[in-house]
Amino acid sequence: MITRKVIVRKKLENILRFSALGGLEEIGRNMVFFEYQNEIIIIDIGLQFPEEETPGIDFIIPNISYLEKKKDNIKAVILTHAHYDHIGAIPYLIQKLGNPVIYATALTKEIVIKRQGEFINLPKLNIKEIKNGDKVRLSNYFEAEFFGVPHNIPDTAGVIIKTPVGNMVYLSDFKFDYDNEGDAVNLEEFKILHKQKIHTLFIDSTNAEVPGKSISERIVEKNLEELFKKATGRIIIAIFASLLTRIAEILKIGEKLNKKIAISGRSMKENIEIAKRLNYIKLAKGTIIPIEEVNKYKDDKIMILSTGAQGEPNASLVKITNGEHRHIRVKPGDTFIFSSSIIPGNERSVQILKDNLARQEAIVYHSKIIDIHSSGHATQEELKTIMKLIKPSFIIPIHGHFFMRAQNGQNAIEIGTPKENVLLADNGQIIHMTKNSAKISKETAPAFYIMVDGLGVGDVEEVVLRDRRLLAQEGMIVIIATLNRRTGRLIKNPDIISRGFIYLKENQKMVEEIRIRIKGIIDKIPRNQAMDSDYLKSIFRERLGQFVYSETNRRPMILPVIIEV
Amino acid sequence: MITRKVIVRKKLENILRFSALGGLEEIGRNMVFFEYQNEIIIIDIGLQFPEEETPGIDFIIPNISYLEKKKDNIKAVILTHAHYDHIGAIPYLIQKLGNPVIYATALTKEIVIKRQGEFINLPKLNIKEIKNGDKVRLSNYFEAEFFGVPHNIPDTAGVIIKTPVGNMVYLSDFKFDYDNEGDAVNLEEFKILHKQKIHTLFIDSTNAEVPGKSISERIVEKNLEELFKKATGRIIIAIFASLLTRIAEILKIGEKLNKKIAISGRSMKENIEIAKRLNYIKLAKGTIIPIEEVNKYKDDKIMILSTGAQGEPNASLVKITNGEHRHIRVKPGDTFIFSSSIIPGNERSVQILKDNLARQEAIVYHSKIIDIHSSGHATQEELKTIMKLIKPSFIIPIHGHFFMRAQNGQNAIEIGTPKENVLLADNGQIIHMTKNSAKISKETAPAFYIMVDGLGVGDVEEVVLRDRRLLAQEGMIVIIATLNRRTGRLIKNPDIISRGFIYLKENQKMVEEIRIRIKGIIDKIPRNQAMDSDYLKSIFRERLGQFVYSETNRRPMILPVIIEV
Repeated sequence: MITRKVIVRKKLENILRFSALGGLEEIGRNMVFFEYQNEIIIIDIGLQFPEEETPGIDFIIPNISYLEKKKDNIKAVILTHAHYDHIGAIPYLIQKLGNPVIYATALTKEIVIKRQGEFINLPKLNIKEIKNGDKVRLSNYFEAEFFGVPHNIPDTAGVIIKTPVGNMVYLSDFKFDYDNEGDAVNLEEFKILHKQKIHTLFIDSTNAEVPGKSISERIVEKNLEELFKKATGRIIIAIFASLLTRIAEILKIGEKLNKKIAISGRSMKENIEIAKRLNYIKLAKGTIIPIEEVNKYKDDKIMILSTGAQGEPNASLVKITNGEHRHIRVKPGDTFIFSSSIIPGNERSVQILKDNLARQEAIVYHSKIIDIHSSGHATQEELKTIMKLIKPSFIIPIHGHFFMRAQNGQNAIEIGTPKENVLLADNGQIIHMTKNSAKISKETAPAFYIMVDGLGVGDVEEVVLRDRRLLAQEGMIVIIATLNRRTGRLIKNPDIISRGFIYLKENQKMVEEIRIRIKGIIDKIPRNQAMDSDYLKSIFRERLGQFVYSETNRRPMILPVIIEV
Repeated sequence: MITRKVIVRKKLENILRFSALGGLEEIGRNMVFFEYQNEIIIIDIGLQFPEEETPGIDFIIPNISYLEKKKDNIKAVILTHAHYDHIGAIPYLIQKLGNPVIYATALTKEIVIKRQGEFINLPKLNIKEIKNGDKVRLSNYFEAEFFGVPHNIPDTAGVIIKTPVGNMVYLSDFKFDYDNEGDAVNLEEFKILHKQKIHTLFIDSTNAEVPGKSISERIVEKNLEELFKKATGRIIIAIFASLLTRIAEILKIGEKLNKKIAISGRSMKENIEIAKRLNYIKLAKGTIIPIEEVNKYKDDKIMILSTGAQGEPNASLVKITNGEHRHIRVKPGDTFIFSSSIIPGNERSVQILKDNLARQEAIVYHSKIIDIHSSGHATQEELKTIMKLIKPSFIIPIHGHFFMRAQNGQNAIEIGTPKENVLLADNGQIIHMTKNSAKISKETAPAFYIMVDGLGVGDVEEVVLRDRRLLAQEGMIVIIATLNRRTGRLIKNPDIISRGFIYLKENQKMVEEIRIRIKGIIDKIPRNQAMDSDYLKSIFRERLGQFVYSETNRRPMILPVIIEV
């Protein structure tokens, strides 16, 4: 007789599990996995850039404790493209995952290897290069078929994962390409997908709340060319080193206009080198010149590509603007073009940059003024078009905060997907899939933040961040009471230091008041009682906190130290 | 014989001085003055909201030390409109300016008086109500003529200041109104100005970098009405309490659609009360209902106006979203409309709000999705139109960072103003004007930040903010070495406390290493030498700083304390 337990186990065995360890409640830190019996396939291992709430943090990376325990089951890692929110956490995590085989297109592979080389003591990666169009058997149960999608970095891949329960289409970042007539190109690929019968479509939600269509790259190119022609002096273009598609366009237009082009910024130089080697950038010899030679040519012959469009303190653009660059000084009549939108949080740094450039009589353009920047992500209408072409049974919006994914879910419903077939899972929730179903289960994988700060991974915790936020808002006061161990009385005037609160040198009266209160508190301790220093500290915190608040309306962190000698 | 000195003095006596104490290097803190001989006229006394670089600060207000010394010369304060970046610093500064007479339109007057009442122990203001169209003699040398301009708060004024050197047009915030055909209305006013022959036009630069024309309020109204009609449940609109023109429109449409309207948020309630009293808002009795009664009506009859569109922690919208509001809970099918663009720095809070609403199955719209929000400031084409109509001899762009003002200067040059007649002064630079000239002089008035934090004005200084920024990034370590005064040796293990660095409880090894290094440093002090505690502290900071950096790649603030007993 087969018991019920065995039936349940048998059922669970035939379930495909899917979960995201990042990317479902933020933009960034993209990493998902599929699990079937004893096999796991991972897609992307990205990082997230820090936010307001994580001051002083370098990066946030996915939590892989679920996968670490099962690392022998990991059969493959698939990378969709070479942006850091999709590959950036590899150096921190790949060893812990057992250094599994990675499948990536040529450009992605090169950039991943370059980045791995920036870390010390890391093992050699086990990367297999694939081309879009390739079919690869990943393991017993999983097969992958790659197809190319347009994005703002070349060699971006979409992937069909063939699993025992059905075909999954995983579409991470992608955009639409338009021809000169404004018609979308290369949609055939998606029609072919439909023929395979798709179980679930996983689809980017970054721009799910942006109505209409994207600005065509053709228009962007036209605008850029017009801008370049207007410039009478040098042209300096600030752009992310990772926007290689745009960089290739700019270089092409620059060459057409007979410019000599110099590259400023290490990451940009390296990326362009790789793209040239792989033939994504084709230029006549002599078009790119060393940065040292920019002053050998007439100003109207010079174009400079620079990193630092977000006002990053150590990047090339800031150095140029502040007169600290080794070879480039701002001249009146220089045209600066910001070819990136501003990431929230960087508004102030970019404003300062633009002010400084304007003060040096440079001409400044950015995307607000003329549509220079077109997003790398499909918009509402475009997302719906893809959904309609692929016609999957289930749709799981990925990449973005809940609100964005809910919007994308709305897109799915509007093209006719039943509401219950649109799944809005959070990071770490495990989705169970069978041939005819997809449901958010009660199973979860840990998915909370792992923070990278300085050399350490994961050693900055929420308590540390909370302290940083508090210190930033109100500052702190350290109170040091030195007591005689036997009598419990003060043997010297209490020491008080403070940072980020008010300037104590100019507020001696308040310092004196605090000292008087400390003495008062200590004088009230009965002599014949063993001193409980934790209790004393809590009294200090409470009473002095109240006093300081009543005087200043502020609540600095109060740190009492009791020294017994 | 008249000496050269006397001639120079005579010349300087006939000069009109103009300077801005805020608003020329930021958005906000608007305050300018004109000075002729012993008479001073002030326009606006605004505040600036805090920025990333000023953590924990409540407001930044203008520095009035130049005016304080001459307060007997202040003849009048003119207020252009009731937004806090134009009136918000009055309670902090008006007494120091000698409580001079203030000229303001009815709505501005009421809001200024209301705000003054929120502070304790302040003198009664001396406000004279004016209507647009009024001519007022302010003093011997100055006369003012007010004219109405559209903005997103009613009763906004432009002003002509008639001075001994010529007529100055001061156009602070203003926008364009369009009729149903999309034609700009009420431009006659500006044509009349031209007849008076204008010496200098002072003109807003907030949107000087935004190309084209604004979205017409007629389109905004139409979009809002369509949205309202689509909603099948309650409608909750989040909007700034100060956008009274938009609020009036919304109330009008709501009434037209037979909604019962409740107001949530104290500032919104007060502002609507004032606007109703002054007839800027006209509603049938019973349209506005008390917030307690929203549950007495069917959902599709209810509209709620709420504060907190930026995710401000104590505002009504956050309370509603978190289920903490006394009368309103989110229901599936509620439609939330954000009728304000997001102020940089608030992206994250607004994102969290929208996520929470979407998770409760509310429908959320904001200006990204549909053009709900039209800016209160004229755009490039509109600014040029005004410049052409007024045809002043000189143009001084006001309101905005240098880059924005430079863009506005470019607008002025494009309509034919000679480059040398466009003045881009910084805060505190004094412009000298004669009948035929306007030049930035070498004279300056102090204009650096005055910060309001808690109860104090001006007691948070740059050093305190620098510490806050540092603490937020890397945290701090306090090191307490208790030494025997005579021997200079440690009499107990050094105490170490840290906040915002790494979690020391889990890093005891590092704490031990720091202690060992402290002992090492102290052991090396020659016994027969008087201890220099400042020197010792600097050694601690340097050596321990290096050690911590080499171990963690971080640079926490190191605060050594030496206790001698």
